[in-house]
Amino acid sequence: MAHIELDPGQPGILGLFAFRPETAKPLSELAEVLLCGPSTLSRGERELIATVVSRGNECFFCASAHGAVAATQLAGGAEAVESAARDADRAPISDKLKALLKLASLVREDGRSADEAAVVAAKTAGATDLEIHDTVLIAAAFCMFNRYVDGLATFAPSDPAAYTAQARKIVDHGYLAVGRG
Amino acid sequence: MAHIELDPGQPGILGLFAFRPETAKPLSELAEVLLCGPSTLSRGERELIATVVSRGNECFFCASAHGAVAATQLAGGAEAVESAARDADRAPISDKLKALLKLASLVREDGRSADEAAVVAAKTAGATDLEIHDTVLIAAAFCMFNRYVDGLATFAPSDPAAYTAQARKIVDHGYLAVGRG
Repeated sequence: MAHIELDPGQPGILGLFAFRPETAKPLSELAEVLLCGPSTLSRGERELIATVVSRGNECFFCASAHGAVAATQLAGGAEAVESAARDADRAPISDKLKALLKLASLVREDGRSADEAAVVAAKTAGATDLEIHDTVLIAAAFCMFNRYVDGLATFAPSDPAAYTAQARKIVDHGYLAVGRG
Repeated sequence: MAHIELDPGQPGILGLFAFRPETAKPLSELAEVLLCGPSTLSRGERELIATVVSRGNECFFCASAHGAVAATQLAGGAEAVESAARDADRAPISDKLKALLKLASLVREDGRSADEAAVVAAKTAGATDLEIHDTVLIAAAFCMFNRYVDGLATFAPSDPAAYTAQARKIVDHGYLAVGRG
């Protein structure tokens, strides 16, 4: 049971968005800009970063929700997502994305762990300053979303179909539509 | 030196806001709603939660910036802030705020650490569902802001006067003014 009184029909962050629309607005706008806005990183690449960070934080709701979106967007589908979450180095993804996932995993542990070596590796693999910025902010933002969802003990469906249906809505309409419920 | 090319005249998150105005907008709106918006928690109480989380994450910029704001808003000033950051239980603050600071510190470690016992303690001390929600989200949001600022190795002034001047601007004009530079 959640720590506060939420609509039991709204899992994860959706119940929190319904509970507090004033914070739902900037939170869904942040997700929209970072994950769907104009970028030289594809939507699949950005959703994979969100998924890997959420897996690292063991946030079942966010990892399932963003993993489902990443699976529809990445070449290789759900298998590529699973492979990258287990061991990015052996996943069928670009060297640049491998380096960015490493950087994101360091940020997840602690901002100060994101050292010069990880940034140089990403730049050497072709990452731009903006891509590095966005990777760090996606990782940091999911350290927030994961704590928000789990810190209030929200309900997470165990059926993968719930996340697949939600993923379709996100892919077609983005995070602002989700934020509005 | 920061990991990406930032305006060296803009310390901490200010350089990041100037670098990426598209993400600065929802980030400053989130800070505005959480820390300055209508709430039964005072601005000083909310800034203290932000400060204690940033101290826990050892983010010098955020801890200094929000500590300076909290010091102007809390009865007891800078000494009360310092005392609460060192040991909330012995600080000259209400029992409710002590319980909320404990909850925030658990969320800082990991969302799943925020257990029923900590929530019940806060409710027993008089905290409402909305206050518990906002405490968890402030703690989670500063786990993001701290990682964003340190993960990109931004510059943090060592002179306390820099934070005092910025605090005055935040108290008078809020975070949207800061986000606009």
